[in-house]
Amino acid sequence: MKSLFLTFFSLITLAGIGQSKTDISEVKEAMQKQEIAWNKADVEGFMAYYWKSDSLKFIGSKGITYGWQKTLDNYKKNYPNADAMGVLTFENNTIEQLSPNKIFVIGKWSLKRKERDVGGHYTLLWKKLNGKWVIVVDHTS
Amino acid sequence: MKSLFLTFFSLITLAGIGQSKTDISEVKEAMQKQEIAWNKADVEGFMAYYWKSDSLKFIGSKGITYGWQKTLDNYKKNYPNADAMGVLTFENNTIEQLSPNKIFVIGKWSLKRKERDVGGHYTLLWKKLNGKWVIVVDHTS
Repeated sequence: MKSLFLTFFSLITLAGIGQSKTDISEVKEAMQKQEIAWNKADVEGFMAYYWKSDSLKFIGSKGITYGWQKTLDNYKKNYPNADAMGVLTFENNTIEQLSPNKIFVIGKWSLKRKERDVGGHYTLLWKKLNGKWVIVVDHTS
Repeated sequence: MKSLFLTFFSLITLAGIGQSKTDISEVKEAMQKQEIAWNKADVEGFMAYYWKSDSLKFIGSKGITYGWQKTLDNYKKNYPNADAMGVLTFENNTIEQLSPNKIFVIGKWSLKRKERDVGGHYTLLWKKLNGKWVIVVDHTS
């Protein structure tokens, strides 16, 4: 019985390690797609990797914004056109899988723009919901 | 065999739910102790709930600070005395257990001071390490 449990847990562990690499790759790929969308001034495409829910939380310089729609509205207001959006680059510092369906990302963002470059840091909590990795909490400063 | 596994997982699940409440209470209590320490101008006491490791990450207005000692040094530099420290209040918005040993907290902080009040938001990643809940990532803005 004991060895059966051990085998069982070893299999779970091995499956977990294999999954972890794939999951992290998926999040990295999602962030590359976000950069591409942003750099085509496609805010909706960028927002496709945020949880489409009223429970999405975005913590920025103005406090907490709740919900996907409000977050989209804010992006559109603050970045009304391609010039304001500029060229986005993400530089991830840490990507850690916290559980099978949760990944935490720490990194640096920058916008190269004609007028004034801006940038800062982010911490992102990603969750795999309905088979897709999405940001559920974004703290950008 | 099947029912044995089901019983086994039910027990794990039940144990998990019970644990979750206790864990969240422990993190809440740790944050209350942090407030008390801060409000006695005891920065070391406040820092006792941060991971004592070079891998601790503090993301603030000046970017990422690595390590417990450097984070302590920054606190001491930025808040050199009781007047600068003021009275700290945490207002938690969300506390979510992400896995048996990880809790994510979103909230608002404020310092009431003689000179100038300050405040903002935080997202904290807590981990239970060696039986104690500690902050491993603090993003404060």
